[in-house]
Amino acid sequence: MSGHLAVIGLGPGDARFVTPEAADALAAADALYGYGPYLARAPLRRGQSRHASDNREEGARATAALHHAAEGARVALISGGDPGVFAMAAAVCGAIESGPEAWRALDLKIVPGITAMLAVAARIGAPLGHDFCVLSLSDNLKPWELIERRLDAAAAAGFVLALYNPVSLARPWQLGAAFERLRKQLPAATPVVFGRAVGRTEESVSVATLATADPSHADMATLVIVGSFETRVIARPGRNPLVYTPRQACGASA
Amino acid sequence: MSGHLAVIGLGPGDARFVTPEAADALAAADALYGYGPYLARAPLRRGQSRHASDNREEGARATAALHHAAEGARVALISGGDPGVFAMAAAVCGAIESGPEAWRALDLKIVPGITAMLAVAARIGAPLGHDFCVLSLSDNLKPWELIERRLDAAAAAGFVLALYNPVSLARPWQLGAAFERLRKQLPAATPVVFGRAVGRTEESVSVATLATADPSHADMATLVIVGSFETRVIARPGRNPLVYTPRQACGASA
Repeated sequence: MSGHLAVIGLGPGDARFVTPEAADALAAADALYGYGPYLARAPLRRGQSRHASDNREEGARATAALHHAAEGARVALISGGDPGVFAMAAAVCGAIESGPEAWRALDLKIVPGITAMLAVAARIGAPLGHDFCVLSLSDNLKPWELIERRLDAAAAAGFVLALYNPVSLARPWQLGAAFERLRKQLPAATPVVFGRAVGRTEESVSVATLATADPSHADMATLVIVGSFETRVIARPGRNPLVYTPRQACGASA
Repeated sequence: MSGHLAVIGLGPGDARFVTPEAADALAAADALYGYGPYLARAPLRRGQSRHASDNREEGARATAALHHAAEGARVALISGGDPGVFAMAAAVCGAIESGPEAWRALDLKIVPGITAMLAVAARIGAPLGHDFCVLSLSDNLKPWELIERRLDAAAAAGFVLALYNPVSLARPWQLGAAFERLRKQLPAATPVVFGRAVGRTEESVSVATLATADPSHADMATLVIVGSFETRVIARPGRNPLVYTPRQACGASA
């Protein structure tokens, strides 16, 4: 089988985050598949076909790209951020597992990218500088009770939390419920970082405490980081504060 | 204060992972600080001074770079992977917090990079495709009992685990002890991925089960991923298997 499928992470938005490996893989493709706004980030190349799909159609998009690659084409499937973190790489693996045997013989290449939590953390200091958990707040594909159990376990054990998919139009209450849950475990002064559209022109980053964090500050383009017992805030005159989690941990409060 | 400090993530090794933002920040610096092998990855530029230090001297390196920047220079501090994940960004923030007040007025820029777990995950499928925890196994800066508590909490709650700093010459037994601990919580067939020097010429990636995982397969250049109850392995003829964690989770075994 001669088909190729590259699953490419473009990072958080701006071209300055696109690795040379990702740029080369984009340029080498005969056909690009992806959510429309991600496709729009790829430089146009003559003779390269483009296949846009809706954000929610991940399974169908993965299947379409695999079918196309199995015909012998060089296909690229585009992801924002990193394709391996709540993105297309798992959808592609799932489609391969349940698809035709021939798909296992395809040349599959996954190209990593800067995922949102790394970009947000870099903008505000080093909140992920020590042990942390990465959790999607979407209960579309898992029960809310499981999310609550994971929030409890992570906070009690002293992990910092990076929360993906904090809210959407169809899931308006989940982030507020998560903050409520975490307030039972963590001090009121625990730092909370809202990073919106980081790496794009409309970027904004703000810092609150767990006591004051307002879930309405988040939207679908926001990544939320909730500190641990050990996360610290450094005030800076005329600048955003720095939020960081030291490399030393005593775990005394956990 | 006119000094600048950029803390730059070079990614896992090869230049194809260095983002344009990181390349530009390297080129703009008057002075580069870093662990010797990381410094060696930066292209030489005339007039740029280089200050190599030992891998273990993170605090001293951060302080030296801040002193130099406070003299008005453009200084770059180089990190492998992402500077915000068990790397230099937290050391710099710690030095700023305990250092002279003037350091808070410096222009500090943190440039994210591809951290090892993203590179390893991309090589083997999508093991980090669902909720996961990121944990350093080094007990140099935290008690081993805290690491055990975090391993227990993460595995019981159904998080995949990405383990940084699994072993070193001075810490030979920690990874074996972690596997032993996890075997009490997770099925024997749980996939374990060893990713060594990913992104460099000597790269190797292998998959074992928790029952058979041999800690001597890891060294200082290895990142270990331990699956959750839900992580799956897809055999492929003539290729490495794919390891992935589906986006759906029932959490039934957690």
